[in-house]
Amino acid sequence: MTLPFDITPFKNANPKEVRELIRKGEWTHPTSGMCLSHVQANMIVLPKDWAYDFLVFAQRNPKPCPILDVTEPGDGEARLIAPGSDVRTDIPRYRIWKDGVLVDEPTDASKYWNDDLVAFLIGCSFSFEGAMVEAGIPIRHMDMCCNVPMYITNVQCKPAGRFSGPTVVSMRPIKFAQVPKAVMATGRFPAVHGAPIHIGDPAAIGIKDINKPEFGDAVEIREGEVPVFWACGVTPQAAVMQSKPPFAITHAPGHMFIGDPKDADYAVL
Amino acid sequence: MTLPFDITPFKNANPKEVRELIRKGEWTHPTSGMCLSHVQANMIVLPKDWAYDFLVFAQRNPKPCPILDVTEPGDGEARLIAPGSDVRTDIPRYRIWKDGVLVDEPTDASKYWNDDLVAFLIGCSFSFEGAMVEAGIPIRHMDMCCNVPMYITNVQCKPAGRFSGPTVVSMRPIKFAQVPKAVMATGRFPAVHGAPIHIGDPAAIGIKDINKPEFGDAVEIREGEVPVFWACGVTPQAAVMQSKPPFAITHAPGHMFIGDPKDADYAVL
Repeated sequence: MTLPFDITPFKNANPKEVRELIRKGEWTHPTSGMCLSHVQANMIVLPKDWAYDFLVFAQRNPKPCPILDVTEPGDGEARLIAPGSDVRTDIPRYRIWKDGVLVDEPTDASKYWNDDLVAFLIGCSFSFEGAMVEAGIPIRHMDMCCNVPMYITNVQCKPAGRFSGPTVVSMRPIKFAQVPKAVMATGRFPAVHGAPIHIGDPAAIGIKDINKPEFGDAVEIREGEVPVFWACGVTPQAAVMQSKPPFAITHAPGHMFIGDPKDADYAVL
Repeated sequence: MTLPFDITPFKNANPKEVRELIRKGEWTHPTSGMCLSHVQANMIVLPKDWAYDFLVFAQRNPKPCPILDVTEPGDGEARLIAPGSDVRTDIPRYRIWKDGVLVDEPTDASKYWNDDLVAFLIGCSFSFEGAMVEAGIPIRHMDMCCNVPMYITNVQCKPAGRFSGPTVVSMRPIKFAQVPKAVMATGRFPAVHGAPIHIGDPAAIGIKDINKPEFGDAVEIREGEVPVFWACGVTPQAAVMQSKPPFAITHAPGHMFIGDPKDADYAVL
């Protein structure tokens, strides 16, 4: 359980300013609700030798792994979505993986960097939360000031080369009457996971206990609400656990890279 | 100028049957209008060493290069979009490229195949023509029984590794009153080029003579019609000409790979 934290002062902040704040180590919490209406991104960094397999994995699994940017090998700048950024320092918290095992959770990944690494920035459902809020749909984890709950499902991704693993989902409890609106509000954003992949019974996608998410924090599901599940950019981390590349850096779940583009730039219709 | 040909008998044909017909060499014409409502795909085949650069190029230029399938190195089967297919024989006409120069246009690419090659299948605007027809928008090149006109523009793609080049577009003349409908009907299909990238004055995107397309056939633009331009999957061929990989196989423009999925499978909303 992460401690409660308050994103209110950063709701309408500029992404560049928030990246600088994070770079200085002054924000180490999840980023949901920050810089609302700007795109947020998951990250996975891999040795160049594994990069092709991962790109094909992403192509075959576009719901959990929509790629927003790919850095040049050895270069920390996400030129497409955040000129001037540095993916080694601009994320509040990282996870360091060796042979598929989590070995560190630093707030700065610089000391783990080398010239052979490629970073992939992947769409995040936080990006469409602005559209949900605008549509009058409350976001429970925002209101609870905690991280979104994420679960490993039994929905297997299509493998590619050395990469395989289960789909990870994020969950938001939605009032029954608002579910169709939630589907349509998010379906317009295929590049940031788009429409939900499941609505209702958690057991149908292999989730045993809705109160025990594998990542993030549990949130209350109230009377008259249904759990709605979106494909999640933490899926590459589940693939890392299963596929065991010799080395990987990812963001810590919920602690995202905030890019410059507006969510609207990724909207279809 | 291709000779007129008649796709009428194949409008509602099954993709698997049409692929077999093509495999036997019994159809060597463009495929627009065949197997309507099923996805059609551009192809580029590259040595494995060039495959990563191309995938990053596609990620950075998703409008012209939306990837639908990537084959395993050396394997001719497009497993995702056409189980049982063979990309070496199931396209009506190929182009063979050496160092960026077109050297052959066979109807069977088998003799050029080797175990180091990877095929990329890329979304094609023919896929959304069914939706346009359903929306009551006539498709000129279908009615003229010729190939769609395609042009090299001055809109540069974002480079990636060794790949760079201009965006290629396809053009359809649309009645002024139907242009908004054409935008919306195609915008629902981002995986097959989606909404147009330009409407009107060809000179604004560097097209010098609308009657002289670089690929395909010129079509008549009638009084009260405006040329509408969609990003085109021939863009990788322009990139091949400029980037000069040692070897590449592509489809011949307009002569597509027909996959099993329905266009509707790629629709957003």
